[in-house]
Amino acid sequence: MNPHAVAFYGANENVPYNMGALQLLTLIDNGFQGKIYPIHPNLETIFGLKAYKSIKEIPGKVDLAEIVVSKKHVPQILTELGEIGVNNVILVTAGFREINNNTGSNELKEIALKFGLHILGPNCIGILNTHTNYSNNPNEACILNTTVQSYSLPPGNVSIASQSGTFVSHTFAILKERNLYLNKTFSLGNEAIIDLCDCLEYLETDPFTEVIMIYIEEIKRGRLFFDIAKRISRKKPIIALYVGGTEGGAKAVSSHTGSMAGKDEIYDGLFKQTGIIRTYSVEEFFDTAMIFSHLIPLGVIPKGKKIVVMTNSGGPGATMADRISRKGLELPLFSEEVKKKIQKYLVPTAQPSNPLDFTFSLNPVDFFIKIPRIIARSGEFDGMVIYGAYGDQFFNYTSFGKEFIEKPKPQEILLQWREMAEASVVDAQKIVKKYKFPMVFANLWGYNDSMFRHLNENLFPTYQTPHRCVDALFNLIKYGEYLQKFQIYSDKD
Amino acid sequence: MNPHAVAFYGANENVPYNMGALQLLTLIDNGFQGKIYPIHPNLETIFGLKAYKSIKEIPGKVDLAEIVVSKKHVPQILTELGEIGVNNVILVTAGFREINNNTGSNELKEIALKFGLHILGPNCIGILNTHTNYSNNPNEACILNTTVQSYSLPPGNVSIASQSGTFVSHTFAILKERNLYLNKTFSLGNEAIIDLCDCLEYLETDPFTEVIMIYIEEIKRGRLFFDIAKRISRKKPIIALYVGGTEGGAKAVSSHTGSMAGKDEIYDGLFKQTGIIRTYSVEEFFDTAMIFSHLIPLGVIPKGKKIVVMTNSGGPGATMADRISRKGLELPLFSEEVKKKIQKYLVPTAQPSNPLDFTFSLNPVDFFIKIPRIIARSGEFDGMVIYGAYGDQFFNYTSFGKEFIEKPKPQEILLQWREMAEASVVDAQKIVKKYKFPMVFANLWGYNDSMFRHLNENLFPTYQTPHRCVDALFNLIKYGEYLQKFQIYSDKD
Repeated sequence: MNPHAVAFYGANENVPYNMGALQLLTLIDNGFQGKIYPIHPNLETIFGLKAYKSIKEIPGKVDLAEIVVSKKHVPQILTELGEIGVNNVILVTAGFREINNNTGSNELKEIALKFGLHILGPNCIGILNTHTNYSNNPNEACILNTTVQSYSLPPGNVSIASQSGTFVSHTFAILKERNLYLNKTFSLGNEAIIDLCDCLEYLETDPFTEVIMIYIEEIKRGRLFFDIAKRISRKKPIIALYVGGTEGGAKAVSSHTGSMAGKDEIYDGLFKQTGIIRTYSVEEFFDTAMIFSHLIPLGVIPKGKKIVVMTNSGGPGATMADRISRKGLELPLFSEEVKKKIQKYLVPTAQPSNPLDFTFSLNPVDFFIKIPRIIARSGEFDGMVIYGAYGDQFFNYTSFGKEFIEKPKPQEILLQWREMAEASVVDAQKIVKKYKFPMVFANLWGYNDSMFRHLNENLFPTYQTPHRCVDALFNLIKYGEYLQKFQIYSDKD
Repeated sequence: MNPHAVAFYGANENVPYNMGALQLLTLIDNGFQGKIYPIHPNLETIFGLKAYKSIKEIPGKVDLAEIVVSKKHVPQILTELGEIGVNNVILVTAGFREINNNTGSNELKEIALKFGLHILGPNCIGILNTHTNYSNNPNEACILNTTVQSYSLPPGNVSIASQSGTFVSHTFAILKERNLYLNKTFSLGNEAIIDLCDCLEYLETDPFTEVIMIYIEEIKRGRLFFDIAKRISRKKPIIALYVGGTEGGAKAVSSHTGSMAGKDEIYDGLFKQTGIIRTYSVEEFFDTAMIFSHLIPLGVIPKGKKIVVMTNSGGPGATMADRISRKGLELPLFSEEVKKKIQKYLVPTAQPSNPLDFTFSLNPVDFFIKIPRIIARSGEFDGMVIYGAYGDQFFNYTSFGKEFIEKPKPQEILLQWREMAEASVVDAQKIVKKYKFPMVFANLWGYNDSMFRHLNENLFPTYQTPHRCVDALFNLIKYGEYLQKFQIYSDKD
């Protein structure tokens, strides 16, 4: 994950039609701080870099080779790399196990074995490391990105090992929406040599990884996986998306990574026993990673499933309450004591029940601080889902309305109100930390709204729709239940 | 829905703290073409409009009154309106049934009965009509919007009747993301007089409404609802979100609209028998509306559940295939004939199986037209879900990459490729129309990507994540199954 010089086989400038061109361009674009040596039989320069005819011509030591050439050249290149002593290889080239090319696949393994090569792939898209050892500052990005997509976010605490390259490249837009930042990712491809177990063991001890995500089509070394996963998930959560267990999923993975998928129930049992949090869609996969990424480093892991719904709008509150029941979580009443305390912050049309419908009221201090503090401090609940945080989208007028709110007086009032709301959010975060009490927000404007972005930047998990909010919190509660079974809580707890 | 003069009780300029102020501002902002008369005891002008002390002072006829004042004034105002002959009333004021104020609620009903008032509410947020009768052109917006949120989209073919005001106001951002355009919406509140059945009957004959959405916490006139819904859903689809059926949902709706919710299974049976398409989250609710809104006017309603997955990326393809199995849809193999025809458009690393993994290949003509046409024409399948349509987000570079692709030569190649892709999309729409064959797209960049927006503007349903794509198509298939039971298909079919 920390090479200082990369040799790139299959380098060219044929954008957008050639994958090698796109991958090399991304590597350069993301500002890799080591050396990059494109290899091509004829070209003199590629993307402004001097090209070499073969690896033997390269001056100085190479410690990683990336291969994006047609498969007939692969055995020869691997042999060459082995002879010269370049042990780390990313093999992007496809056409082995996924099309039943067992001869090719075996030849590859033999060469790897002979020279002790660590090969990622074939049919993979490589790696991303947003925190290479070029810097000692964990917030400074010195990116190594061999995928086809540029990564433009800061380094984070989430790492992914994936049997699909897409889930570690096309997903960068999904990450950006969620303020979810990556640390390291591995696209595993067909796992001829390096497999999921190897990656998990690497991530187990990686000090920058606090949350692990795995996308699985098949687990090869089942017993080993079981032991490793069980060990890791007591220290770091593992979130999984598994798609091979249904008839359709099995058909798909056989033509993708050439895997023989197992029954869904078997995998489900495996996940439960090892404490892996299973998700069922790409959205839930990343939604869950976001709540884990934000709250686990703060030691916020619920110990039970008693939830409060707070809302300033009836429909979304009812939708969240409905979802809470469907997921098997609880929505208990407030004690008389809590009721009395809450009552004084409510308008006359609102009642101190759970769901707590705040009704139309835009007082951010009561909404973000006063009421949540009473609830968190009471110890009667394990978490809170909240609908409604209004920022600029609420005043998204076009003609007359825009004119009006841009007048000095209304603008000043709005500005004061927003400043008060933003300050409340910062203070509310103290409640989360002090009482280890999760507060998860939903708002139908999503990240179009500035207040919502502000909430997320202050480490509140935020989701566009009510049910996603509940589903994410549910997964965090499931992780808490697993830890509790072993009475293991994070150091910070 | 088509007033020519609106009297507004509770008008003021106290933005953002007063709901009346926000609603009046929205009404003006959206450019309502009739007259607006603010009513206030003291103020001379409000938002630049002349204010009146009472409705009696207003010159000329008023045909709609909107009331956003504290509840103690409501009976008097209603009586006044009744005496003067203003029959249509939007009653925003809350504090009746949802807080068990039965006396107040009954008083309100008596006044309405006495004068024959049509009251929407109380505790509602009013209506939106993007197609008032100020224009005969269905594409020209002459908006009447009494809600708290400005509507800035064109008039569409979807109408909503909702027991939550939020789902017809805060959702405008969700609509925008989906290129989903509204025609009329009703926020029903507590339904003291006008209820869901009345709205459904109105929408049944509204020529501009092609898809109906309902958000339900309780159905009051059950038998009538059953008959109306059954009759309408054979002509126009009805999509429902019902949240009262669980324990949490029931608690929530009681404090929201004061409803007594029924058992989930009873509602489920009701929906099945009447052909209503039930959804389980706000997201699915609007996702389903989008596919219906785009495809039903084209007569594209599947007759079976045999689906093809096409992808240029293994992981998302496998995720879609997995979801297809979980939803009980089928993923049959291609016939030998189809296989042979498809084969010639595939690269050597791809195989003609279903899921059809196109692998890395950016040839838009094969992807959007050649292969889909073979599949649609074969008659072997009822629909297709497709992952991957690449536009500008694929080339979202920051430093060196940006510099490179902005050079004249790469820029020209990219431009040609994009133009070819965009033209292919327009041609692909002909396949959808000719063979009544749904093609539904997923792409993890979502609407951040220009190609995805282009697809959606050309009436292809488009979703950010693979499972949402399958779920939406599943709901369209369910509607087709219902129609088939009665052998009823749309006129255009």
